[in-house]
Amino acid sequence: MPTPRTTVRRLPKRGHYDRETIAAILDEGLVCHVGFVVDGQPYVIPTIYARSGDRLYLHGSAVSRMLRTLAGGVPVCVTVTLLDGLVLARSVFNHSMNYRSVVVLGTVAALEGKEKMLALQTIAEHVVPGRWKEARGPSETELKQTLVLSLPLDEASAKVRTGPPEDEEEDYALPHWAGVLPLQLTASPPVADPRLPPGIPLPASVRGWRRPRPG
Amino acid sequence: MPTPRTTVRRLPKRGHYDRETIAAILDEGLVCHVGFVVDGQPYVIPTIYARSGDRLYLHGSAVSRMLRTLAGGVPVCVTVTLLDGLVLARSVFNHSMNYRSVVVLGTVAALEGKEKMLALQTIAEHVVPGRWKEARGPSETELKQTLVLSLPLDEASAKVRTGPPEDEEEDYALPHWAGVLPLQLTASPPVADPRLPPGIPLPASVRGWRRPRPG
Repeated sequence: MPTPRTTVRRLPKRGHYDRETIAAILDEGLVCHVGFVVDGQPYVIPTIYARSGDRLYLHGSAVSRMLRTLAGGVPVCVTVTLLDGLVLARSVFNHSMNYRSVVVLGTVAALEGKEKMLALQTIAEHVVPGRWKEARGPSETELKQTLVLSLPLDEASAKVRTGPPEDEEEDYALPHWAGVLPLQLTASPPVADPRLPPGIPLPASVRGWRRPRPG
Repeated sequence: MPTPRTTVRRLPKRGHYDRETIAAILDEGLVCHVGFVVDGQPYVIPTIYARSGDRLYLHGSAVSRMLRTLAGGVPVCVTVTLLDGLVLARSVFNHSMNYRSVVVLGTVAALEGKEKMLALQTIAEHVVPGRWKEARGPSETELKQTLVLSLPLDEASAKVRTGPPEDEEEDYALPHWAGVLPLQLTASPPVADPRLPPGIPLPASVRGWRRPRPG
């Protein structure tokens, strides 16, 4: 799976190329950063995505410059990053972050018909499992206004750092506190739409939402 | 401040170009996504950064391909995204996210001497305010192994979505729950390095860490 373009060169021990590691990171993330080039200038734009098997789905407005550019078949890079902690070493130099990231290179294909609808369902269910059946599905007009793109995961790599700081041997005697401050994305209590009529209960999909998803 | 390249075209009401909005987003974020082009292929790589005045600092290993490429003066895009919530509408189509993001375009300059040291301090203090004085500072050798880059914030824009879902008028009568699930990055209790000698107290900088920083 690793190609010369996706082989982790710096700190190669952090590189991972197996499907399970890559899939787990993509399934936990919510936002990806999409890189593309217009007139020699790179652009990096955040957007929602979802993984299904060996493909990654993107979607958005059919008039979005980013999606229309990508659909033209240009090279794209999609990166997903999960921040797991601040690594506080005894030296400033060895400070780091614990993280898991995936980089995918390739070109996208636009989806139509059943595949398009299924990809939209996959994206909705990726963000809030169970949500697809709790909301009104897309109308024909809404489908026409939506562009759905598929990116194969053929050229992908993950980079992972875990564990405590790695200080210079002579620094372990220093009197500085060292360790990891774990970070995670958490949800606060849901805020109902001000226009929500009384008597509509909060669905379990929202009440029980968390990342990573309960096993 | 907005140029044709940084003007938000889709949903222009989400675009912001004032320094205060841009600075506040950059100061709350921890990881940016750096976009650059090699042989026509865009790459998007996550890394730590910090803002100081009208500049953004990046740093890393002096042998990093990304930093060496950027230091060559190629066009770069740096994007910072804060995810604030899942926006759950009555229709699948109007689902969205609440977020604040900044996109910066430009080219970097490598820093040396006092400026370089000050930028490293700014990055350390950005991640954990107070940390610079709690850890051993960089040696000459470590400084040589580190590349520090400065990117002007001249060409930057922010995009912000807040508030409840915006449903189609006829959908407000549907019996579906709608609202926002707020999300935030939170810290768990710090985990001391297994090699930390007994008797070294947890510093206030780590104990009180949170984002956004206490006002």
